[in-house]
Parts: sequence; structure tokens; C-alpha cells
Amino acid sequence: MQVLITGGCGFIGKKLAVKLLEKGSLTDSSGVSRPIDRLIVHDIIHPEPALPDDPRLTVRVGDFTDPAELDAILGPDTGVVFHLAAVVSGGAEADFDLGMRVNLTGSEQLLARLRALGTVPKVVFASSVAVYGGEMPSVIQDSTHLTPQTSYGNQKAATELLVNDYSRKGFIDGRSLRLPTIVIRPGKPNKAASSFASSILREPLQGTPYVCPVKPDTGVWVLSPRRVVEAFIHAAELPADAWGMSRAVALPGITVSVQDMVDALGQVTESAVVGRIRFEPDPGIERIVYGWATRFDPERGRRLGFQADNDMAEIIRAFIDDELGGDYAR
Amino acid sequence: MQVLITGGCGFIGKKLAVKLLEKGSLTDSSGVSRPIDRLIVHDIIHPEPALPDDPRLTVRVGDFTDPAELDAILGPDTGVVFHLAAVVSGGAEADFDLGMRVNLTGSEQLLARLRALGTVPKVVFASSVAVYGGEMPSVIQDSTHLTPQTSYGNQKAATELLVNDYSRKGFIDGRSLRLPTIVIRPGKPNKAASSFASSILREPLQGTPYVCPVKPDTGVWVLSPRRVVEAFIHAAELPADAWGMSRAVALPGITVSVQDMVDALGQVTESAVVGRIRFEPDPGIERIVYGWATRFDPERGRRLGFQADNDMAEIIRAFIDDELGGDYAR
Repeated sequence: MQVLITGGCGFIGKKLAVKLLEKGSLTDSSGVSRPIDRLIVHDIIHPEPALPDDPRLTVRVGDFTDPAELDAILGPDTGVVFHLAAVVSGGAEADFDLGMRVNLTGSEQLLARLRALGTVPKVVFASSVAVYGGEMPSVIQDSTHLTPQTSYGNQKAATELLVNDYSRKGFIDGRSLRLPTIVIRPGKPNKAASSFASSILREPLQGTPYVCPVKPDTGVWVLSPRRVVEAFIHAAELPADAWGMSRAVALPGITVSVQDMVDALGQVTESAVVGRIRFEPDPGIERIVYGWATRFDPERGRRLGFQADNDMAEIIRAFIDDELGGDYAR
Repeated sequence: MQVLITGGCGFIGKKLAVKLLEKGSLTDSSGVSRPIDRLIVHDIIHPEPALPDDPRLTVRVGDFTDPAELDAILGPDTGVVFHLAAVVSGGAEADFDLGMRVNLTGSEQLLARLRALGTVPKVVFASSVAVYGGEMPSVIQDSTHLTPQTSYGNQKAATELLVNDYSRKGFIDGRSLRLPTIVIRPGKPNKAASSFASSILREPLQGTPYVCPVKPDTGVWVLSPRRVVEAFIHAAELPADAWGMSRAVALPGITVSVQDMVDALGQVTESAVVGRIRFEPDPGIERIVYGWATRFDPERGRRLGFQADNDMAEIIRAFIDDELGGDYAR
């Protein structure tokens, strides 16, 4: 079978691609293991660094919202699509039309094209906890209503509805995962309001001082790159009837404060590392971050077998192993 | 100012049109009364019977999903749009593409065109309690999540998200009303699963025997035509800042059983009328109807000043006055 990852050159997409190639197959709803004959990693950018050489792998650069591009990357053998392509939160807020075109219309076109295949392919859609917002209960339940306060969150929530309805109608076999903040994201600090949650650990581990724009008591709902890749694969392999009336699930994560992150960093590393962190709250970033949901009771996600990390120390150690070659800047 | 009703030739749209012409003006968000200089009633069908002659009224027949048609019915003077046009529940389920084209894409195009006006027009969107479905709590709260189990419900829920986001961005000033089952609907029984809720009263009142396809203990969440028209106007006149983080509201209604309806009919009319009702449950219709939400705690709607009917007897008396010229078939 053919497997497609849209937005596959982001850091999660690349890790997912590597894992899928390693694994070599995915279990279908009848419990049958189906080999991945071809993996298409699609994105508007090239993968940096390049993905490993593999005869099963095709990297293709293009715009998935272009119908001709969809024709090129989908076919009768397409068994599973991991739909990660999106204009991120800040981008969709800054350019409403772009966000709508990619995050909602683009997703809708993808679903329509998958329906037209007539083969009921599996779709694992990367949604986000940004579907929550505004006045929220102190702990988000599986039954909490979606009141997104960003265009990104609204577009993700609307796409979840389409994934549900397409699945209910038997056009696709969809699953939507509401992703926590993924920590520790490799790369450089960026303009995203959530950047601090990875940067406060990644930068000091690499020997770089970091000025944190939010207070130590700021809470975050986090999941590691390892666990989110496992979640995508687990979602693809769960049988259709496990999902019930909704194809969307909030992934289990852990609630940590920024202070918890710093403490875990102190526990895992020598004291010099924590000494590279300084706090200088930025009211603009704080205003955004304080609107995020930080406490969840993801009972449905746990019941479906999705797994959170055990603690921040485990997340930091995994980052050192996966991204820093086993050691950090002392 | 110019006011538009899409889907304005349905029974609610026509009643709303008559009421708006009577009222002659709508209060804007600054509390200023703005005269209705022109009322466009738009639909894909002609109004039957015709709407009253009025120099302010334009009835236009066309397809609102056609961009050229939108250009013809919107303009810089458009102050308020009541968006009632939709493919109904059964229709959207039977023809998925039509439902998507009208209920979601059509609504999206309308919002985009209203945004392009640059005048932040008010939009009152007719949503539905069909946004609820599946496993629901015993009483629907304002914070209950939307898990629609029909294409119609999904399309309404997705449009609510767009109305919220367009409003949050300042493109429009939107309000979405989740309508209960409207009882007593004039006209003839139809194929809608909800048809019984009006027919069981309307048919006997007009001297026609009626075979009810659901059991007497079946619950329904109802609102009268009079109250829903008041709700549309009240929604248009509420100031923007009354709405808070969400522009959607479940309208208050009353929960009644079919037996309550029959009892109220007996209370309001002579015994011969109730004698025209017979029960012959239809498992196909029962299966659909039993999936509906029947108990709500619409605290937000009440707080915003929306009003339910007092009881079924009041609803029946209003129907006799409004639709039967003050008397019923004895």
C-alpha cells in the first residue's frame, strides 16, 4: 500500500516518516498487517536535513491545495494519509485567507479527493488543543465544547467535523488527534507564542543562554516528539469501531509548569545548564499563553491506548539522545 | 438600511419578513434605531402564498450559492442578513454534495462576500439543535460539545465556527441561533422525521385524521413560530458585546412529550379533535427521533433574553389564531 504524509517535512512529519520506514507496515482495521510499498512525504518545503535514502520513499515538494498536486500524490493504492500540512497558528491569524485556503478548504479538497478514490482510505488528521479556548472549565474533559479563539483553532475544529462526517458516511476512515504542545521541538526559537516551551530546554542544553518570556508558574500541556509519532501510528492502526460516535480525540499529555521544566533540567543535567536561563516576562506573549488550556482529563484518549510521557526528565533525556547525539553542552 | 433574508420563502422566513415590515426598523449595536428602507426576501422558490405588497419589499428568486446572485442581493447598505437558506436534514443526508455546497460552502461564500463589503454587517444564522447528537448528557448544557450525527448538523456546526471566527476578526457581527423543533409548522405533513411534531396537532385541528409514527412518551424540544421570529429579531438587536467568546446560542424551548401535546390539544379543543389521532409506531422514524436531544438547560439563551413558550396550549392557541383564522375543525 501507499502511505502519504502531507506537511511531511516539518519535524514531526520527518520523524513519522523515519518511523514508518523502520516499521515497514501498518495494521488495517481487520487486524491484517499491510506492507508500506511506497511512502510519499509531501510538503511545500524540502526536508532539512534530508530524509534517509530508501527505495520506498518519495519526497515531493508542492502545494497540496492544488488539485493537480493531489492527483499526483494520491492513487488507488493510497491506504493511509497522515494529514499534517497546515498554516500554523500565528500564520493563520496574520493571513486569514491563507489559513482558510490551506487549513479548511485544502483539507476539504483532500477529503473530497480521498472520497472519490472509492477505497475508504484511512486519514489521520493532526488537530490541536487550539480547538479549545475562551472561558474554559478548570479541567478540559472529553465532553468540553470547542470554542476556539484563533482562526487556526476554528479551522482545525471545522476540519474535525468534516473528518467525522466523511467517516460516518463511509467515505473515509478518519481519526483526528488534538495535539498538545510538542516539547522539545528541535531547531531554533521562532516567533510562535509556544516557542518558549521548547526553547527553555533546548537552548541551554546546547550551551545557549535563553530569556524566557513567561513566568515560572506558567502551565503547559505537553507531549514529546517520540510519543506524538507513536500516537499517529497508533491512531492509524486502531480499528474503526474503537472510535464510536466521534473520530476526534484529545491526546493524553502531562501538565507542567515552566518551573517544573527548569527543575527537571536541573535534575538531568549539571547546574551550569539551568544557569543559562533568565526570566523576562513579555506581556504580549503572556496574554496569548495564559489563554491556553493546560489541564485535561483525556479519559477517552487513555482508553483508546494513547500514551503520555511519564515526566519532563524523560522528555529531556529523549531529546538528548535523539537530537544531541547523547550529550549536552556542559 | 437594507435587510436580507436568505431562504426567506420558507414558513419562518415569510413570518420574519412580515414582522420586519411591521416593525420597520432594527436597533443597531449603539442602541440607534435604523429604518429598514429595503427588505430583500431571497429564496430558490417563490413565496406561497405571496408576501404582502410593500414598497420596501423585493422578492427575488435565485440560488444564493451563485456569486453573481450574491452580488445582486448584497450591497454597501446591507446592514443585517438573516441567513436561513439551507438544504434540510433529510436532503443533506440523501445528497451529501448538495448539502455541502449549500449549507457549508454557500454559507462560507456568503460570509466572505459580506466581509468584502467592509461594513461589518450583522448576520443572524439559523443553526439547529442538530449540532448535538450521539452520546449526550441527559440534559444539554451550554458547554456540551457538538457531536452531530448528520451531515446537516455537521454543516451547521462548521458554519457556526466560521460565524464565530469572522466575528472575532471583525469581518461581520454574527449570531448563530440553535433552533429547537419549530411547532406548529403550517402546511402539509412531509417526509422529515420531525414532521409528526407539527402534524399531530395541525392535522386534527384541520379535521384530518393523523397516524402518529412515534410513541406517546417520545420527547421533543419545541419552540413556536411566533417565538422563533421574535428570537431572530432579538438576536439582530442584541449588542455585539452581549455575546462574549461565542456567537452561538441554544434557544430556550420547552420539553414536551407527544402525550403532553395530545393532552394540550384536548385542553384547548373539543374532544372530537383528539379523537382524530391514532398511534402506529414506525421503527425507522423512531430510530431517528430517539437520537435527538430533548432536554436542555439553555441558561445562556435565557440570560441573553431569548424566550420560550409557556406551554403547549399557548402554542396551539397561537396556531389557531395565526393560521386557522381563529377557529378549528370541530
